[in-house]
Amino acid sequence: MKILVAPNAFKGSLSAFDVAQVIKKNWSIHRPDDEIIMKPLADGGDGFEHVIAKEKNADWINVLSVDPIGRPFQSGYYRINNATAVMSLASLCGIATITPSPINALEANTEGLGMAIKHAISSGCKEIIIGLGGSASTDFGLGALYQLGLKCYTFDNQKIIPKGGNLHLIEKFDDTDLIELIGGIDFYLAVDVKNTLVGKNGCSHVFAPQKGATESEVELLESNIHHIGLLTEKMLNKEVIQLEGGGAAGGTAAGFYSFLNAHIMNGSEFVMELLNIHDSIEKSDLIITTEGKFDQQSLEGKLPYQIAQLGNKYNKPVIAFVGSSDINSNDPKNPFYCIFSINNEFTSIDTAIKNTKKNLSECIQQFTKILSLDK
Amino acid sequence: MKILVAPNAFKGSLSAFDVAQVIKKNWSIHRPDDEIIMKPLADGGDGFEHVIAKEKNADWINVLSVDPIGRPFQSGYYRINNATAVMSLASLCGIATITPSPINALEANTEGLGMAIKHAISSGCKEIIIGLGGSASTDFGLGALYQLGLKCYTFDNQKIIPKGGNLHLIEKFDDTDLIELIGGIDFYLAVDVKNTLVGKNGCSHVFAPQKGATESEVELLESNIHHIGLLTEKMLNKEVIQLEGGGAAGGTAAGFYSFLNAHIMNGSEFVMELLNIHDSIEKSDLIITTEGKFDQQSLEGKLPYQIAQLGNKYNKPVIAFVGSSDINSNDPKNPFYCIFSINNEFTSIDTAIKNTKKNLSECIQQFTKILSLDK
Repeated sequence: MKILVAPNAFKGSLSAFDVAQVIKKNWSIHRPDDEIIMKPLADGGDGFEHVIAKEKNADWINVLSVDPIGRPFQSGYYRINNATAVMSLASLCGIATITPSPINALEANTEGLGMAIKHAISSGCKEIIIGLGGSASTDFGLGALYQLGLKCYTFDNQKIIPKGGNLHLIEKFDDTDLIELIGGIDFYLAVDVKNTLVGKNGCSHVFAPQKGATESEVELLESNIHHIGLLTEKMLNKEVIQLEGGGAAGGTAAGFYSFLNAHIMNGSEFVMELLNIHDSIEKSDLIITTEGKFDQQSLEGKLPYQIAQLGNKYNKPVIAFVGSSDINSNDPKNPFYCIFSINNEFTSIDTAIKNTKKNLSECIQQFTKILSLDK
Repeated sequence: MKILVAPNAFKGSLSAFDVAQVIKKNWSIHRPDDEIIMKPLADGGDGFEHVIAKEKNADWINVLSVDPIGRPFQSGYYRINNATAVMSLASLCGIATITPSPINALEANTEGLGMAIKHAISSGCKEIIIGLGGSASTDFGLGALYQLGLKCYTFDNQKIIPKGGNLHLIEKFDDTDLIELIGGIDFYLAVDVKNTLVGKNGCSHVFAPQKGATESEVELLESNIHHIGLLTEKMLNKEVIQLEGGGAAGGTAAGFYSFLNAHIMNGSEFVMELLNIHDSIEKSDLIITTEGKFDQQSLEGKLPYQIAQLGNKYNKPVIAFVGSSDINSNDPKNPFYCIFSINNEFTSIDTAIKNTKKNLSECIQQFTKILSLDK
């Protein structure tokens, strides 16, 4: 059989690459003759740049930048043919770059991302692809834009460094230097949420609590980002407040769309297209994907769901191995051929996450034994 | 394929019969051409008599008896050819017959079992097979023996009805009536523990806490049953204290062995032999068994483990579907081809038990789909 292994990461335990390796290794124990194609997946969040870089054979460029609360932080981005930079907000200044240290939603900004973009531009890149997910900040991407030359002034003409908590002080932007820097550069944003900038479904209400914001801080962030959205609309004459996906990464999508003329793309689709997933599915007999947790929302469009739908299109069975799933296999909306939990034991979620590699290994071995039973 | 379905009950949710039905029904959805042989299993505990009766096409005989604390209780036993009675302590006066009412380890006895035996003898049965498991009492089977004519006297010649908590008062037995009643009757005890009557590994210390006994009550029960053991050894000149399996069902095995000359058998082996499991395994391509919970102890000789070992003997794959398992599939002591948990979701054990039927149904459907994938 020809097997396409197109896994998502088990968040907090195994990257998509690790998952693919574990599956391949354990698959071949009982079925050494199967041909295995590995296509680790990602959406716009953690692991985005690695998945693309692997496919494109890109070079890793180290950048000494700052984490979301301004501390020196060693990270980087990928460069393809000295022309295209691929990076992710998550690994440059995402929430994972400060935890387990205390996170501070009002202090956090995206300067680290701006430093990497600046580096890429100065090294000659004309195309910059950015995964927007896993952010720690709610700053409209102004931290990054500040690093790229955007000046932010208060009502009394003081220059300030924008952060989630002080955006209400900004009364005026000066984008002269920014415009000069980004001339001739194309920006692409990989986004996997449809949230708008403000409102009940906006980036503050939905995501700021995950970034450590208290209830009153959420209200301040909401008010601040609304203020900046209006200011930007007025200055640039662009639709920002209602922009679909504009709320991604604490409004960074809206900010970059406005000031960098960035194109907003669906991250999962972009990755699947870049990895030629259609083609791989068409050529395979069986598709394996993974996810940490499936719930009803997973049927709304998460990556494995999209893979399963593609599988159905080509009439190929897609099997999901998950940590936990509450999806009824007979649900008419369930596009998977089968969903298996990798856990056999009643245990705590923490223990299960700790044992992901072991449990996935055993599960794949058992699965492949079954696959060969009725020959 | 020819599939042998030889399940154990999911205790607290599905009987072995129900499990077999659920598996058969869901199996045939995706694999209607497979031939399915159903052999629901039991050890000496809950469901023992039903499993045997089904195989032997026996008649159910209602008996109005008493529960472990003397309240009227409607139960019964099976009769085969008017010559053999098959019954279980569990369903006549087991712990499940009083829960969720408060159980009382000192008050509980086995009179209910004695009433059923008496009924069977009076209706002409010459062979009585009793599953000993799931007991609520620790009375050496004296409640039952009392119902069969054994008289128990205190030091001042008062007759008493024996219960776990008053056995220390007994100074003398009179078995004249008992002997008359049981002449020509053969008793067989199906037992699945090796515990002896007394000591750290005896029926009081190991099982009385499950029957609601406090620490001091456990000590009283231990002292009482030791006293009765010695009294019986002295009177009948039989080894009782050290008898392997004598501690089964609160010492009922030891009591019946002594006073009824009962034969003690391994319940699982007895059931497997009676059901011709060897033969069925030899004739099948695949064997399915089930269990609520697997742990390291399950590899010491529980029913599914014995099935798996038989499977290995005949080189047939045995697959276990379980609620939960902590057995490493690569453990050299693991005799199963595969072990699958029927639960995909992280949830409470109570919820999982409540959803056993649904989860088992989905799991079997998914499993059978996989089985047909690589054709």
